Amino acid sequence: MSEKQNTLSIFALGGINEIGKNMYVLEYGDDLIIIDCGAKFAGEALLGIDLIIPDVTYLQQNHHKIRGLVVTHGHEDHIGGIPYLLKKLNIPIYATRFTLGLIELKLREHKLLRESTLVEINETSNLDFGNIKVSFFRTSHSIPDCLGIVFDTPEGKVVHTGDFKFDLTPVNDQYSDIHKMAKIGEEGILALISESTNAERPGLTPSESEVGRHIEEAFFGATGKIIISTFASNVNRVQQIVEACKKTNRKLALLGRSMVNVIGVARARGYLDVPDWMLVDARDVRHLPPERLTILCTGSQGEPLAALSRLSTNSNRDVKVYPGDTVIFAASPIPGNEKDVSKIVDNLFQLGANVIYGSAKITGMHVSGHGYQEDLKLMLTLMKPKYFIPIHGEYRMLHIHQKLAEAVGVEEGHTFIIKNGDVVDFQHGEARQTRSVPAGDTYVDNAGDDEVFDIVLRDRKQLSEEGMLVIVVSISKDNGDRISDPDSISRGFVYAKNSEELLSNINEVVKRTIDPFNDANVQGMRRAIKKEVGNFVFEQTNKKPMILPIIIAI
Amino acid sequence: MSEKQNTLSIFALGGINEIGKNMYVLEYGDDLIIIDCGAKFAGEALLGIDLIIPDVTYLQQNHHKIRGLVVTHGHEDHIGGIPYLLKKLNIPIYATRFTLGLIELKLREHKLLRESTLVEINETSNLDFGNIKVSFFRTSHSIPDCLGIVFDTPEGKVVHTGDFKFDLTPVNDQYSDIHKMAKIGEEGILALISESTNAERPGLTPSESEVGRHIEEAFFGATGKIIISTFASNVNRVQQIVEACKKTNRKLALLGRSMVNVIGVARARGYLDVPDWMLVDARDVRHLPPERLTILCTGSQGEPLAALSRLSTNSNRDVKVYPGDTVIFAASPIPGNEKDVSKIVDNLFQLGANVIYGSAKITGMHVSGHGYQEDLKLMLTLMKPKYFIPIHGEYRMLHIHQKLAEAVGVEEGHTFIIKNGDVVDFQHGEARQTRSVPAGDTYVDNAGDDEVFDIVLRDRKQLSEEGMLVIVVSISKDNGDRISDPDSISRGFVYAKNSEELLSNINEVVKRTIDPFNDANVQGMRRAIKKEVGNFVFEQTNKKPMILPIIIAI
Repeated sequence: MSEKQNTLSIFALGGINEIGKNMYVLEYGDDLIIIDCGAKFAGEALLGIDLIIPDVTYLQQNHHKIRGLVVTHGHEDHIGGIPYLLKKLNIPIYATRFTLGLIELKLREHKLLRESTLVEINETSNLDFGNIKVSFFRTSHSIPDCLGIVFDTPEGKVVHTGDFKFDLTPVNDQYSDIHKMAKIGEEGILALISESTNAERPGLTPSESEVGRHIEEAFFGATGKIIISTFASNVNRVQQIVEACKKTNRKLALLGRSMVNVIGVARARGYLDVPDWMLVDARDVRHLPPERLTILCTGSQGEPLAALSRLSTNSNRDVKVYPGDTVIFAASPIPGNEKDVSKIVDNLFQLGANVIYGSAKITGMHVSGHGYQEDLKLMLTLMKPKYFIPIHGEYRMLHIHQKLAEAVGVEEGHTFIIKNGDVVDFQHGEARQTRSVPAGDTYVDNAGDDEVFDIVLRDRKQLSEEGMLVIVVSISKDNGDRISDPDSISRGFVYAKNSEELLSNINEVVKRTIDPFNDANVQGMRRAIKKEVGNFVFEQTNKKPMILPIIIAI
Repeated sequence: MSEKQNTLSIFALGGINEIGKNMYVLEYGDDLIIIDCGAKFAGEALLGIDLIIPDVTYLQQNHHKIRGLVVTHGHEDHIGGIPYLLKKLNIPIYATRFTLGLIELKLREHKLLRESTLVEINETSNLDFGNIKVSFFRTSHSIPDCLGIVFDTPEGKVVHTGDFKFDLTPVNDQYSDIHKMAKIGEEGILALISESTNAERPGLTPSESEVGRHIEEAFFGATGKIIISTFASNVNRVQQIVEACKKTNRKLALLGRSMVNVIGVARARGYLDVPDWMLVDARDVRHLPPERLTILCTGSQGEPLAALSRLSTNSNRDVKVYPGDTVIFAASPIPGNEKDVSKIVDNLFQLGANVIYGSAKITGMHVSGHGYQEDLKLMLTLMKPKYFIPIHGEYRMLHIHQKLAEAVGVEEGHTFIIKNGDVVDFQHGEARQTRSVPAGDTYVDNAGDDEVFDIVLRDRKQLSEEGMLVIVVSISKDNGDRISDPDSISRGFVYAKNSEELLSNINEVVKRTIDPFNDANVQGMRRAIKKEVGNFVFEQTNKKPMILPIIIAI
């Protein structure tokens, strides 16, 4: 047996030093298991890009080893990259009933459902992947049907927590299985891979059932229509909204494609109980008295194209916001989304609505699905790992998570704060981190449903900040003589009062630059124009537009 | 006397439905007074734009009426637009000693200082602007030397609060002059114009002296070098940092141009007391033992070019961050800056520093300079205005401020929630809001020190999200016949494996499109190419790049 074969390797292809695009890999000999395949939203900073997914070069190179993708739960940052992965590698996917429902929605959209291999598992499942045996334990989070994973390898047992909190009064019956976790910990854990999202927050995460109390209070206080927005996948919160509707005798209309889709999956698969009498079509709500009506919609994060944003500008055809209506944000803004949310709040106030928004501490309308420091310490205590790899967080979260681990007994030097691609190798029960595999961002442009390359983004960035300058000159094929005067066209660049003068000066620079060329050396002319005009423009305007010399040799 | 002459008009040219670029106007007959002239930072969303300032078309049209610009205090959102205003309108500026110091820094930079008229005022000054007499009262805020303003007009008295909180234990001797405010209120106020920044926050703003306690604690706990970042203009906080240095026997080095400049002004004008022995040059700090050293620097908001950001990547030549150093963020992130700050925190942790950051509630390292709800109610109670105009806030803040005003006795219907440009007219003691003046954003590109027009930004946005496609074709001047085959060049657009095929197909479309033209109708050809190629590209790629047909007629 070669050395390679008795090494257990653990690494991340996404999810480290970021919140999003989680993807982790366990490899032993010729067996490779992928955990999760998430996406990350690109935000304004990335020009025209919709989605970022992990670079899976390593997986493509090691296709023959892959035994499957095991999914911990159905959030976008854990399943959003699956369609793009399947287009490259058709591998079997293992997930719980609800998670599979959400994955199927995606695969149907991408027309990949028929050729995919989907395997339903639950917390009692056992998978046998050659050298690695896989079992599971139940965790609580802000979506149903979450799993932690135990990998039994020849080197020892490795636990991946998935996303979790300890909720002792969850709204469904999916308690964190503390007893099973304790038993797993008793058996001895080589390494714990645990999420770090809320490592900065002291204390214990509040229970989801807290939110229900506040929703109910708001429902009893509302006189007009209620519009409430939350994450569609937070089925337990939706259940509490349904209960509040029951108690106040309100019907419920759903707005937003993902709300309709996800609630459809949750009802069909038995995770959500909505009586049929309660649901009304959004097109019919105008016939209902407002005090008998609740609208449940997407857009709690201020997404400009989601239902709530459209409601806030009264651009939904069927549902209008009137003075006296109550709008509830039953989800805190994720860092980075505050401005978009505020804009919608402003618009709703302008329509005369009573808006319940802002910090969860004040409104009580949100609790996190990610464990705070005490939750993280409880997991570490239950598992008593020899080695610890904090994941699913930005650097400071991983750093603080390390301190928490050391506080509950993980030895100093036994925590690995890795980067995406960094490999932790385990051999003879000892861990070391010396090598890396390729890892990075792959950009997806949803409009084109295509990957976008770095050079395109670099160009867009320059274009967006400096504009561009096209310089056209036609020359004789034979001797490089100018046939017409140069012409310059600018876009996204100076439009000041003196811009005509600037452009005419640029044309003079071009003439001077190409005059010495006494043959049709188009490449040379292009280079010279780029350089000379670039310098001249920077001198004159302090800007560096993209310069595109076009030389036509006739 | 015409009706026009006995109307008092109040409006905003900036500062409403935004935080930033404050500019308010009072006008009576032929007398017009401007209050503040701020700027707003553009952020990532505005492509390559550095600064937004108010559109001052109305002021240019009414130049002859302007009696002066009165400045409440020296923050950027109140003085940042002054150089650009002065380039258009050379008007006298009235401000306190410290505020003038900051304005002079700006004017010197823009080479405008010599031709400017600057008048120093204080809380006892009286200005006589024809129909309008102006007096002042002292307020507390997060910068020294702040004023509230009383305008005595033929229609009655109008109070503008400036930015304020009620700090009963400020660090300097500049207490809010509650007694004077009470007296002003007793005399009867027609209208109160009051800032709304913290209208969403219940309670009373904590005192600046609270921060001093926490700074001192952190200084006593630190073993290595201390790096502390705050707003340069928060001179009182800087004074508390100086006091902590004294008590722990540390020298102080300043990093960042605005820190050096503003502290220079504050010391020279007597607002800040730093003993000479304490200050060291940043170039000499490497010779000092770390436990004897504090670095005070800019960049607490995560500004990528500021000192702290450079320290966090160890790219400052003189000062390096070592394990065991303590870095303190003595300022909370302003909404929208969280991500930039987090990135720097991550980098500092990676360098091994102990970083004190995050919510002021946890660190105690920041208090707001803007009054919370109880502060706002106290101002309203002191002034007892007949009419109320909430300013300096986004819509929801103005809305909540209105509710606060009504709670302390302002009559319903007597609050005017205006937009920038909306005019409130007062006549015979009655107010109404019916008309508007031009108002809006003017973009400034600092590199070129020039205003940028909307069309440039629209172009940049399209370029940045969709890229561009230049199509070149040369034709005969006489009959429009093609002389060379069309050529297409793309930037920031598809670079997929099939892009060559796409470009060659585009050239076919161009050929087909221009073939029917049987004269050199360049305009017509351009339009036709734009349309046909645009449609073809959208069909093929779902993208709408900017299409730039270039037709050379020879």
